[in-house]
This record gives sequence, structure tokens and C-alpha cells, in this order.
Amino acid sequence: MGNSEPAFSFLPKVNALDRSLEAALWREMDNKTKPLGSLGKLEDLAVRLSLIQGTSQPKLGNKLVLTFAADHGLSEEGVSAYPKEVSAQMVANFAAGGAAINVICRELGIGLYVVDMGVDAEFVYSEAGSSEASPGVIGKKVRRSTRNCAKTEAMTAMELGQAIKGGMEAFYEAHTKKPVDMLGLGEMGIGNSSSAVLLTASVCGLGLDSLNELVGRGAGLDDRGLERKRQVLRRVYELHKLDSATAMEAMQRVGGYEIAGMSGAAIAAAALGIPVMLDGLISTAAGLCAWALEPKIRDYLFIGHKSAEKAQACAVNSLGLEPVLDMGMRLGEGTGAALAMKLADVACSIMRDMASFDKASVSRSSMA
Amino acid sequence: MGNSEPAFSFLPKVNALDRSLEAALWREMDNKTKPLGSLGKLEDLAVRLSLIQGTSQPKLGNKLVLTFAADHGLSEEGVSAYPKEVSAQMVANFAAGGAAINVICRELGIGLYVVDMGVDAEFVYSEAGSSEASPGVIGKKVRRSTRNCAKTEAMTAMELGQAIKGGMEAFYEAHTKKPVDMLGLGEMGIGNSSSAVLLTASVCGLGLDSLNELVGRGAGLDDRGLERKRQVLRRVYELHKLDSATAMEAMQRVGGYEIAGMSGAAIAAAALGIPVMLDGLISTAAGLCAWALEPKIRDYLFIGHKSAEKAQACAVNSLGLEPVLDMGMRLGEGTGAALAMKLADVACSIMRDMASFDKASVSRSSMA
Repeated sequence: MGNSEPAFSFLPKVNALDRSLEAALWREMDNKTKPLGSLGKLEDLAVRLSLIQGTSQPKLGNKLVLTFAADHGLSEEGVSAYPKEVSAQMVANFAAGGAAINVICRELGIGLYVVDMGVDAEFVYSEAGSSEASPGVIGKKVRRSTRNCAKTEAMTAMELGQAIKGGMEAFYEAHTKKPVDMLGLGEMGIGNSSSAVLLTASVCGLGLDSLNELVGRGAGLDDRGLERKRQVLRRVYELHKLDSATAMEAMQRVGGYEIAGMSGAAIAAAALGIPVMLDGLISTAAGLCAWALEPKIRDYLFIGHKSAEKAQACAVNSLGLEPVLDMGMRLGEGTGAALAMKLADVACSIMRDMASFDKASVSRSSMA
Repeated sequence: MGNSEPAFSFLPKVNALDRSLEAALWREMDNKTKPLGSLGKLEDLAVRLSLIQGTSQPKLGNKLVLTFAADHGLSEEGVSAYPKEVSAQMVANFAAGGAAINVICRELGIGLYVVDMGVDAEFVYSEAGSSEASPGVIGKKVRRSTRNCAKTEAMTAMELGQAIKGGMEAFYEAHTKKPVDMLGLGEMGIGNSSSAVLLTASVCGLGLDSLNELVGRGAGLDDRGLERKRQVLRRVYELHKLDSATAMEAMQRVGGYEIAGMSGAAIAAAALGIPVMLDGLISTAAGLCAWALEPKIRDYLFIGHKSAEKAQACAVNSLGLEPVLDMGMRLGEGTGAALAMKLADVACSIMRDMASFDKASVSRSSMA
């Protein structure tokens, strides 16, 4: 875990975060007119974003969510409460502006594009940046759905490379149109919570027996469905020897095009020094896999919210990060990431604009 | 607890919330293109706000935070890490726009006024609504600081009435200038976490022995300071027989002008059908006391965030509510309320703007 896999030589280099400003930034934060540490997670957000931007005047002017969509062959095994067609229907819903992520991004002034990485349907694609009201669908389709990983490998090695590159390109296209200051990652794909749980158990080294505990209801399985999902995932885990697989081997065997795409987009953004806000279970699994490919990416990753799915907590712990929000959400699409991106804005303004004790002539604690 | 106290006959009547729309609103929420319940707390927020506004098209156009400030005679006993002067210094900092609550409200498009309920200093007052960039200080001073409740009652019965009325008036003045769609309540007052813990223990019937557990570090006491605060509060609790006091008796004996002011403002807003977002420990104690005066207010109250101070959780549980956020914050001023008010905005837009399964032609769960 954490070792880069040299086969992916097309990946851009991520620079180690320069931490030389860290002590000075914390001094500045601690000098602001508030009890030490009293803004909790907002303070950590503010200092980390300042470090990434290399300034005590951080600003997230243009925030963008990319929602990656794809279908999963594994959905044939009945691991989701929703039929496979819903992936394509939801992409149409995104494009029409009616889904939760559309509404949240509009309300919070966050840009949004949808990336078709492998939905089992055809769409009319538009360029990134072509429309503000209804987000265009960027076409990076690798294949109409992965293969059923209960029977064979989900994707070929070549498709895996193509998916990671497609995610990178989708980010570059959006960034070229309008430079991005923070990237949020979200997804849509019936069956993808199964992929994400398998990837997390494999990359975190949790083992087969962890699955009983980690497998969750995804978009809303009932008890019988949950038990079936557990059995299927145990079988898939054993079939693909996920105990001894590298992250990219696991991605190829049981992953998803949208998950690989998010990994690529995260690395592309981090390589340009742009912070990345992950969402819930599935995007965090993508972040985990990106981290396995490129350990330096960790310093640029943020976890938008604590998912109701247990496996996400394992990935979050492995990454040594902490979710910004805990709102009982389990929708995906980037919805938790988008909410947390607005709090990141607030954190930046705290760092930029709050007065110091000296400037405001406020007395300090007698305990300090 | 929960019984109205007839001495406060000047209080406006709060109407019981009309729940006839509730089932229809949940049906509408459940028909939106997302798995059932997958937006977690945002869904509860959306439905509660819709009920309060009596519409499935809820909107929080004008959001206002009122930050109530006052001094506490009890601060003479060394229960805070900060000297008493800080209350006045922070009011000046609010007026100059440099405090955390200023920065957060500006970033989130929320209005802000400061209300001097009893700070031990003189200020130049301005009318509510006189300035947008730097919030005016509304003058409702009852007295320069409460009396030291380790020795005598914090305030007289007449002063208590005046403080509650002052809070009501401050809200009415702001509301008259620009009608408020959601009111956030915050505070500043060195020593006021002591008042709030005592009020919470008394109104929730937790008893003297609960104090060891409930007394927290406030703005940042060290271990020795915390032990002293515990001893002082136990002494005050016994002196004023808080085990058998009504909420308003407790407020008079150990409360604060800013806490009573928040109770008044909350009741005034709720009586006009306006939802109220509480902040942390101290504003939640004010909400608890308002509820004791007027049980119907509960339906209009929201808890902005889970405070790092344990006593708040007792008040929240008694009210049967759940905090929106949990960010490890313990600053007060209304900072947690302001963040949660933006999420309330998002919740309203979810209710208004998200597509239904039928409208978006998205298939439903096979489990439903």
C-alpha cells in the first residue's frame, strides 16, 4: 500500500507539499480573535488550504464538481436496489439539471460537469464549459459497462489505463476552459458501492472476513438484498485473490471506469497543486487507489463527508484524513463534497479576513 | 419543565405548528430522484422548514444573525480563561467587522447585528439595518453586567423581564427594517458558559452531581481553571437551590442578560412563524429556557451545531432535536448557527428544485 505502480508512466508528477509555511500559518490562525482551536475543523481546513496555495490569503474562486458515471457488469448479480438503467437515466437527469448535485451546486455557486466513463447508453456530448445552467456531459466512455466481475475481470489493463487517462483529460478540459481552484469528485453508477467496498477491503488489507461488516445497503437494499450482496462480494473477493492484489490489480479486476476516472482526475488536479474534495464511499475508494499510485497526493485530498457506508471510514483512516461533514448522507453524485467545498470557502475567508488580537486590541487568554 | 410561566404576560403567542402538510411533504421528498433518506439531515431540515413556511416551495431569502452580548458578575470568581474586558473588546471587534461571525456571515450572505444587552462598557449605538459592511450595535443594555451570582441573584425580576423584552425588541427592529426568513442566535459574554451550564442542569433536572461531568473549559480553561470552575458552579448551584427552581427563577438567579435576550428573540421570531437557528451551548440554553416559557416554540427551533461543551447535548436531548453540524467548534458568536443556516438554504432548494422520479423518467428502487 502506498507504493507507486510504475506501469502507469503517463501519470503526471505530484509535488510533495511544501510545509515550510505550516508553523507560521498556525501562528497566524492562533493569533486571530477567538479561543485557540475554537473553530475546530474550519481551522484545519484553512491551514491545509493555505499550505496548498502557499499563502496566508487562500481563496477558492472557481470550485468545480466532476460527476463520473459508469455501469457495472456486477449489477447482473442483483447487488443493487435499483435497475442498471438508472445510471443512464440519472445522467440524463444531471444533464437536465434536476438531480440533487445540480441543485446543491447551483445554490452554492459551484460548477458541475458530468463525465460519461462507461454508462451503458449513448449520450450527446458537449465540451466542458459549454453551458452553465445544465451541465454538459463530457464523453470519455471506455466501454458500455464493465464486465461482470463475478465471472471475469471487470476491465482489461488497457481499459484501466484509458479510464485513468479519461479522468485526467476530463479535468484538464474543464480546467482549460476556466481554471479550477478546488475540484470536487462525485459519481453515479448502479452497483458501484460493491466495487468500492471490494477495493477498500483490498487496498486497506482488511481481508475477506471484513466484508460481512463492511458491506452496506448502498442505495437502499433490504435485508435479503444485503445478504445477497454480502455473499456475492465474498465470492468475488476470493475469485480475484484481492488479499494479495495491488491497488491497480484490484481496480482492473473489480473496479469501475468511473472510479478509475476519479483516481485519474484527482492525480491530475493534485499535480497542478489543486486541492481535491472527495465525497463518500466511492470517491474515497478512488482517492485511496490514487494514493496507492501516487503517495504524495494525500496532502491534496479532503474528505467531504462521513458516509453512512462503513467501508468509507476504513479508507478515511488509512488516508489519515478526517471528514469535514457528518450529515447522515449516502447519495453520492458529489453532494457531500459540494457542501464541504462551501465550508472550505468559509475556512479560507477566516484565514484571510479575521482580525488578530493585536489589530483588534483584544486581550489574550490568561491561560496561554 | 415545559410549563409556561404566567408572569411573563408580555410574551407574544406562538402558534402550534400546523402538521397537516407533513405526510404530503415527505411524499414529495421521497419522490425526488435519490434513494429514500439518502440526503440525511438535509431532508429533515427541508421538511421542517417547509412545514414552518406552509409550502413545498420553502425559501430563506433573508437570513439574519443577532449576536447578543453581556457581562457576567460571576467572572469575578475566575471561571473564564479570559478577562472580563474581552466582552467589550469583542463587541468593538464585531462592530469593526473583524470577528469570526463577521467573516462567516459576509461569506455566506447572512445579515448580522450585535445587541448590547449588558456589556460593562459604553458603545455608540446604531439602528438595526444602518450598515451592511460593519454591523451596528443595537442598544438594549439592562445594566453594566449581571451581579455576581456566587454572592447574590444575577438579576432582579424586573431586569429579567427587561432583558427578555430587549431581545424581542432587537429582533422586531431588525425584522421591521428587512423581513427575516430565518433568525440565527449567537452570543458573546465572558463567563457565560458558566451561566449556560447552570441553567441547563437546572432546567433539564440533572442535579448537582451532574456538574462535575458537564462543566467544560469554555473559551479555554486549563486543568486548574476547570477544577476551580467546577467548584464555583457547585457552590452557586447549591446557593440558589437550582434543583427546585423554574426556568425563569434559574435565569434570574444565575442567568445572563444576553441569554435572556436570546430567549426573548427566539419567542418573538417563532410567534411570527420564523424559524430560529440556535448555535452552541449558550444559545441552546437560551432556547431551552424559551421552551420552558412557551412549549410551542420547539417546532421552530433548530440546533446549528454540536458544541464541544457536553452540557449542550443534554439541552439538545431535552428539546428532542438534533444538531445540523458537528465540526468540533466551540466559539459561539453564532458561528455554528451561520454555517447551518447556509445548509438550511440548500435544504430548501432541494425541496423546491429537485426533480421527481416521474418527471425525470428515472426508475424506482425494486425494494420500495
